[in-house]
Amino acid sequence: MRTDNLFNRYLPILRWGSRYRQVDLLDDSIAAVVVAIMLIPQSLALAILAGLPAQMGLYASIFGLLMYSFFGTSSSLSIGPVAVVSLMTAAALGKLTLASDAEYIAAALTLTFLCGGILLALGLLRLGFMANFLSHPVISAFITASGILIGASQIQHLLGISTSGHNLVDLGLSLSNTINGANLITLSIGIFAILFILWFRIGLRQLLKKIGWGDRAANAFSRAGPIFAVVITSVIVFVYNLGERGVQTLGEVPIGLPGLMIPDFSFDLVNSLLRSAMLISIIGFVESVSVAQTLATRKRERIDLDQELVGLGAANIASSLAGGFPVTGGFSRSVVNFDAGASTPAAGLLTSILIALAAIFFTPVLYWLPKACLAAIIIVAISSLIDFSVLQKSWNYSRADFAAVSLTLALTLVIGVEIGIAAGVLASIVVHLYKTSKPHVAVVGKVPGTEHYRNVDHHQVITHENILSIRIDESLYFANTRYLEKLLTELVAEKPRLEHVILMCIAINKIDLSALEALEKANKALSELQIKLHLSEVKGPIMDKLRHTDFFRDLSGNNYLSHNQAVEDLKNDDAAP
Amino acid sequence: MRTDNLFNRYLPILRWGSRYRQVDLLDDSIAAVVVAIMLIPQSLALAILAGLPAQMGLYASIFGLLMYSFFGTSSSLSIGPVAVVSLMTAAALGKLTLASDAEYIAAALTLTFLCGGILLALGLLRLGFMANFLSHPVISAFITASGILIGASQIQHLLGISTSGHNLVDLGLSLSNTINGANLITLSIGIFAILFILWFRIGLRQLLKKIGWGDRAANAFSRAGPIFAVVITSVIVFVYNLGERGVQTLGEVPIGLPGLMIPDFSFDLVNSLLRSAMLISIIGFVESVSVAQTLATRKRERIDLDQELVGLGAANIASSLAGGFPVTGGFSRSVVNFDAGASTPAAGLLTSILIALAAIFFTPVLYWLPKACLAAIIIVAISSLIDFSVLQKSWNYSRADFAAVSLTLALTLVIGVEIGIAAGVLASIVVHLYKTSKPHVAVVGKVPGTEHYRNVDHHQVITHENILSIRIDESLYFANTRYLEKLLTELVAEKPRLEHVILMCIAINKIDLSALEALEKANKALSELQIKLHLSEVKGPIMDKLRHTDFFRDLSGNNYLSHNQAVEDLKNDDAAP
Repeated sequence: MRTDNLFNRYLPILRWGSRYRQVDLLDDSIAAVVVAIMLIPQSLALAILAGLPAQMGLYASIFGLLMYSFFGTSSSLSIGPVAVVSLMTAAALGKLTLASDAEYIAAALTLTFLCGGILLALGLLRLGFMANFLSHPVISAFITASGILIGASQIQHLLGISTSGHNLVDLGLSLSNTINGANLITLSIGIFAILFILWFRIGLRQLLKKIGWGDRAANAFSRAGPIFAVVITSVIVFVYNLGERGVQTLGEVPIGLPGLMIPDFSFDLVNSLLRSAMLISIIGFVESVSVAQTLATRKRERIDLDQELVGLGAANIASSLAGGFPVTGGFSRSVVNFDAGASTPAAGLLTSILIALAAIFFTPVLYWLPKACLAAIIIVAISSLIDFSVLQKSWNYSRADFAAVSLTLALTLVIGVEIGIAAGVLASIVVHLYKTSKPHVAVVGKVPGTEHYRNVDHHQVITHENILSIRIDESLYFANTRYLEKLLTELVAEKPRLEHVILMCIAINKIDLSALEALEKANKALSELQIKLHLSEVKGPIMDKLRHTDFFRDLSGNNYLSHNQAVEDLKNDDAAP
Repeated sequence: MRTDNLFNRYLPILRWGSRYRQVDLLDDSIAAVVVAIMLIPQSLALAILAGLPAQMGLYASIFGLLMYSFFGTSSSLSIGPVAVVSLMTAAALGKLTLASDAEYIAAALTLTFLCGGILLALGLLRLGFMANFLSHPVISAFITASGILIGASQIQHLLGISTSGHNLVDLGLSLSNTINGANLITLSIGIFAILFILWFRIGLRQLLKKIGWGDRAANAFSRAGPIFAVVITSVIVFVYNLGERGVQTLGEVPIGLPGLMIPDFSFDLVNSLLRSAMLISIIGFVESVSVAQTLATRKRERIDLDQELVGLGAANIASSLAGGFPVTGGFSRSVVNFDAGASTPAAGLLTSILIALAAIFFTPVLYWLPKACLAAIIIVAISSLIDFSVLQKSWNYSRADFAAVSLTLALTLVIGVEIGIAAGVLASIVVHLYKTSKPHVAVVGKVPGTEHYRNVDHHQVITHENILSIRIDESLYFANTRYLEKLLTELVAEKPRLEHVILMCIAINKIDLSALEALEKANKALSELQIKLHLSEVKGPIMDKLRHTDFFRDLSGNNYLSHNQAVEDLKNDDAAP
């Protein structure tokens, strides 16, 4: 029954839903409460980071979580706005010249819809593998740089001033121009909130464990710092009427759930946001999948990359239509969800309901919430993103990887997120091509008394004047064919009595068409010099492809299963005239 | 003596010049005459193809050849304007909005200088390897498409009309609008010239051999068809006064050599030509090096890629300052040079002098040369560029390569040269990443009675419940780490009694930092499941890098020299509780 299969494939909820038990509901409910308490203040804060009204963060979380619970495959992943994607959203929208806040919001909806459409399309076309083309160290460097930019962008809220810019240079200049307007009460609230949340996370957790709380409960409660900080700072602002002393608060926040919104699909807007939407989609997908994969391994579960794309696509389209902004799977909230015992995607569904209830009943109290408190929440959250160890690690392991990593870090900080990640992806590809473009090639000879062949430079081996035995330790493809042609020319030029070249193919995993053409050319060129080209120890899958080619048919020499056999066969030609 | 070395390195003429003998001079002189006779009409025709005055082709050849003979390393390469690069020049200049012919010429000089500067810089920075990143089948497809575009662009001269456009669509539309103005006398001259040159190449050569000429002499003479065509058609136009019957001729061509020109370096012009200059430089370099490499192999010589860049850079800068346009090593003229017996780069120097003499003494007779004859010369010349066999070949060998090749061909024809080659390069890189992103991975077991391990799917082998032996047939790098992580998760999920995972690394030629991090992560995740990760048969160069990493220090299992040893050691753990 084809429709059945299709439904099952694209609606994972049918699979886990039919096996749902009461004990699952208990586990999922506990996790939902813990995650909702963590996610509500974060959602508000991240909307502000993206340059949008705070409530859009709630809408994004509610509808993102809802859709993912139907379409997603990970039982632990928690969906919503995340810091790096919110920063990229701000950068994408900041490039446009928009007349009003309403236009800015409309553009955000369009961007979100585009992200959803791109993710969905990639999923339906089964192009999830494209995420693999991003190198992990490059993404680490990008996330570290993004964390720094996010921190720098929040300084304005801590100081009660207004800065602009999407890189460190612009933010720094803007800060130096406006710092005279700093409000010390705002700063005090911000610093208090930072210290309070950190104490909750570290000090209080240890205290709770000491007085006999279990690990899981203490860990979960220690994540509630932000919500308490929100309540406490709001009360302080209300009681002392600090709004009149220059402390910026959220002010009027609409009550209840949003109506259906239709994004603006005018050609100019779509055209100018498309590239940003692609970058946001890919970064969001890669981040989300990394978390999902890590947590799935711990549970011995599987996740389906293409269905993950469908799930994230649906989440973003829903977020767009409900007046939210781009969402994806967040690292720390998913780990919290996992640790709190979420056993199915229903945990996300329940989280969604809890946040919706909060949006309906508690938004009026947000009137007095100081923006400095939200900035504090973000600053604590992103502190875990910043990790320079990748610089040290790549420096020690490979200078080429280090070059790609440091380029990404520097360009993201100095120019911005889009150029930074684009340059990083490009650099990691160029580095890979470069590293494989000069493969390790050994001229080999026989270790006396064995059938083994080793590098003539490192071992005492037997060679023959009329034979050149070459082992290439790399797949042959366009980026290294020219190097190998050149090397072969040089090696041949060194041996005037040469009659046979034997390529030992044991370490060759692939041969592309460029390389095949180069082999054909080499075969022809060597023939003109009365030198035969032989192959030895070609792997099965490669032989299957070579067998039907002109190259193999026209090969001047033979194809040997063993290199030793080849040398034994050919060495006696030495005596020939 | 450092300066001595530097001079020797950057001025190859010092090396071969000091060994120059009288017999070399004779060989080089003969080759120079043959090549000059071939190159003079081609240079004129290619300048017209680039949309420039005919004499600029002569200037480009004279000074390109001159400089290359000092700085180049190939004894056979013949420098000058070539068809594909001339087409790309026309496309690059066609994108600009230029007010007059003088501005068009000035922009050509700037473009040429930029090409020279880029080539020189790449050479001095020793970045010649960048040319390797172009896949040969993609270049073949690009050259075939360019050949078709060149042919289509010459139809106007054969018909005596004027068309515009840099792709087949625009050229076709333009042709259908102007074809009513076709001049039949012009067409007759063009067809006569095509047939005449073809007869010279094929019919006359066989005739000459029949009447006893040597192979070399007959071949050389058969290449002189274009110059005879030029003389004959010019005489016909002069005698019958066909200029008044609507046959377009070159008209006034300046006599003698040009003065020094200084290109226009205004920011806007440089900025809008820079990307084109990069593409032209790279394509020119790749074409030139391919020829040089092929001919060097035949002579058992070496060429130095970086010094080749210096040579081509100097040639283009000189061409620019002398009022020429982009030059590079041409395929057919280099083969002619080689066949005619050129023994050193002095052949190029002599060719340069001969063309200079022609520019001084023979330009007045070009007044009557019909453009249709030059179009005929180009059409015959490019007919050898067009080769669709790469489509068939790639289709048979690999569908992914076919996709890259056909994309390049289609986009070049339909949109233009720059988009075509850029898309081709990108596609070939994506294809390579894709192919290596899902590497061949085998779960292996022991062939009974041997120490060999083979794929469990294809062989009757011995396996153990507590051991998973995996052989990965590919280097580990960012594009395949995620796939391998996923595969490992799945394989582990299938074996509930698993205690040991052994990675057989015999076919792994490289491990990049992304892959190292993935291995670290896998090691940690498996540890949490009480499963140990072991390595076996790691190659020497890889072990040298791994030895100092945290991964290797924290590896839960062991590193075995032989896979069999690993299995023998670990299989008895089976009995453990």
